Amino acid sequence: METPTQQVYIEDLGKHDGQRVLLRGWLYNLRSSGKLHFLEVRDGTGIVQAVVFAKEVAPELFAAAGKLSQETSIEVEGTVRKHPKEGYEVGVSALRVVAAPTAEYPISPKEHGVAFLMDHRHLWLRSKRQHAILRIRAEIVRAVRDFFDGRGFTLVDAPIFTPSACEGTSNLFEVGYFEDKAYLTQSGQLYMEAAAMALGKVYCFGPTFRAEKSKTRRHLTEFWMVEPEVAYMDLAGDMQLAEDFICFIVQRVLERRRPELAVLERDVSKLENIKAPFPRITYEEALEILKAGGKEVPFGEDFGGDEETVISEKFDRPVLIHRYPRAIKAFYMKTDPTDARLALNVDVIAPEGYGEIIGGGQREDDLAVLEEQIKKHELPREAFEWFLDLRRYGSVPHAGFGLGIERTVSWLCGLHHVRETIPFPRMLERLTP
Amino acid sequence: METPTQQVYIEDLGKHDGQRVLLRGWLYNLRSSGKLHFLEVRDGTGIVQAVVFAKEVAPELFAAAGKLSQETSIEVEGTVRKHPKEGYEVGVSALRVVAAPTAEYPISPKEHGVAFLMDHRHLWLRSKRQHAILRIRAEIVRAVRDFFDGRGFTLVDAPIFTPSACEGTSNLFEVGYFEDKAYLTQSGQLYMEAAAMALGKVYCFGPTFRAEKSKTRRHLTEFWMVEPEVAYMDLAGDMQLAEDFICFIVQRVLERRRPELAVLERDVSKLENIKAPFPRITYEEALEILKAGGKEVPFGEDFGGDEETVISEKFDRPVLIHRYPRAIKAFYMKTDPTDARLALNVDVIAPEGYGEIIGGGQREDDLAVLEEQIKKHELPREAFEWFLDLRRYGSVPHAGFGLGIERTVSWLCGLHHVRETIPFPRMLERLTP
Repeated sequence: METPTQQVYIEDLGKHDGQRVLLRGWLYNLRSSGKLHFLEVRDGTGIVQAVVFAKEVAPELFAAAGKLSQETSIEVEGTVRKHPKEGYEVGVSALRVVAAPTAEYPISPKEHGVAFLMDHRHLWLRSKRQHAILRIRAEIVRAVRDFFDGRGFTLVDAPIFTPSACEGTSNLFEVGYFEDKAYLTQSGQLYMEAAAMALGKVYCFGPTFRAEKSKTRRHLTEFWMVEPEVAYMDLAGDMQLAEDFICFIVQRVLERRRPELAVLERDVSKLENIKAPFPRITYEEALEILKAGGKEVPFGEDFGGDEETVISEKFDRPVLIHRYPRAIKAFYMKTDPTDARLALNVDVIAPEGYGEIIGGGQREDDLAVLEEQIKKHELPREAFEWFLDLRRYGSVPHAGFGLGIERTVSWLCGLHHVRETIPFPRMLERLTP
Repeated sequence: METPTQQVYIEDLGKHDGQRVLLRGWLYNLRSSGKLHFLEVRDGTGIVQAVVFAKEVAPELFAAAGKLSQETSIEVEGTVRKHPKEGYEVGVSALRVVAAPTAEYPISPKEHGVAFLMDHRHLWLRSKRQHAILRIRAEIVRAVRDFFDGRGFTLVDAPIFTPSACEGTSNLFEVGYFEDKAYLTQSGQLYMEAAAMALGKVYCFGPTFRAEKSKTRRHLTEFWMVEPEVAYMDLAGDMQLAEDFICFIVQRVLERRRPELAVLERDVSKLENIKAPFPRITYEEALEILKAGGKEVPFGEDFGGDEETVISEKFDRPVLIHRYPRAIKAFYMKTDPTDARLALNVDVIAPEGYGEIIGGGQREDDLAVLEEQIKKHELPREAFEWFLDLRRYGSVPHAGFGLGIERTVSWLCGLHHVRETIPFPRMLERLTP
């Protein structure tokens, strides 16, 4: 390059129409046609066609351009011009190879098996489809934070190392902690209850862990969860918050990530449907729906993925199912004062069979009832003394929920399996790269 | 309460001057003076004085108000009016106890030892000082995300479970991972290098872990780190990014968290000084400063906390120290092409003795040199094959850094010890609550 030109990102080319620019990126694809080479150049912000015309460059440059292999890192200098279909293209005047691949790029346009792609996740991320998913994921995370920050919530990071299990010990990862042992968090909720008593409206947002031995399309061992908790909020307020929250996320993705949804061939009409109010049904009404759908479940049993799918098919938007049997819900859920068989909880099931995306509810704020529940669930009382303190000193009604990011990404992107919803998925048999 | 009034948060009282409002919160403090009780009420968004005047309420209510104990959860109804000094106060017309403490609140206004307060962290968070620190921490996190999102970076979450150590195995937490074992991440950087090749400008932001046996005022076993990585960026660009980033965070906290800084009695003039350009010195220039300060360090040794303090005292803003000896820096740092004894790295030392807040640099993009460094550092080659792929397929110059959130909070808040910078600190001897 003889004249150093300012680097411009591909997503900003529209601001430089008619100007000479420098692109720095990688060769995504190459087509040639007589006196023309069409280089698809990507730089992480987009892909643009760079046209090398034999009459406009030196013969050596034209010859070299025709031999570039996939994923060669290149700097391209040229003039931005409107393209009849694709927005903008660049008419190349200079081109420099930064580094040629040392071997043929392993991910060719041909079909590859899932195991192969997962083993090459560090390279697979460069494909159009993975790029689109990651941008949508980042947008969802941004929307989550904007929603809560915009409503006066304070972010309070929950600890990852915990001394005890929140909901039983079966799916916990254990860590040697110096002379002691610790467990990786499954939920920040108990800590958020303490924080809500200090700051009113709080949320945590971080990785959580479940050592589930099952290989399903909906499970990761490491996944991200956002958990708001609000003092002086009841179940009705909790459901309202969850509904507002989901609407906000869906709207944001529709506003800002249409091109990425198009890459994924997502049916956006399904997402445009997602408007308040969402249906609210009780657990017992859900049992009726299941019965009518030929999937009878006796009172007192929880729903699995199949049941969630049957229920979700009855609605064109997320459905809030509230007041499950007290006995199958966590010890901290508040017992329904009008029916002690039930808990004041709510689960939200995504439409189109994408499963449960939210679980939450009102928390037990009565010290004696909570102590009894700890006993019933056979939990180690001493580990929860600090949690009981929240009922000893200024107990108030409060509620919250947790939303799983990967399931939300899978729903909004229309992905059958959660493995593509996170940059580096961790599963039962997958710890690399 | 006979007339249900809309709940208003204390931070919004200014919008309701002259109106009747409902506050829901806790009693922070009580003073009485004849016919008046002054209730300091907190609701997580602020503290307001609620005045109970004997002539304006029923005698039973006046008597009950005088007996309220600290941290009683209460609903207060009353009229907002201007207070000569404190902004606004509320003239109480009705008051309801939600729950009286079952025992005296353990954290009284008297002095408590650190161990006691740390054991009661779940309650300690309610104090003015901890409240201020948490709000500043949340603001810093928000600023971090606004900075990178606003510059076109894509958030790419790095995995927490890693199969191998990024920088040696000595300070790693090991986790049983089904039949295998995994380590908790110390840095997302290697993954961000892969992501930068896919998305150009990326960052990760999550918890990281170091099993350090040392008990110092600067170390936590679990802490949050943000790590940007940019393709086609060199060391000079990296230093510029770090400088812009720190200025952005400091400005944001000064703009939005002055009241909290005042609670902490932080000398804000020191923070108002933090403006670009920051001094940039080489490692060898730092050795000269240390020598002049009576702390001679031979070439080839790293700096500890004491050395950092001596250097920081020479400047009124963060100082960027670049080009350390190659041998003491991580295997992935790029060797300085003009002097092979040095690495193209940079550390940023906070002023006022708050220590290193950033470490980063340009990465080795030459396959052969990187292979050699892996050998020199005696790292298991096969674990880094995927990382070497980034140099095999489209290698480009790239750089990045990591900023530790807790040290940044400790600097901006003026806290001697990092234990108060995170909601639930985890240290060598601290895993609860």
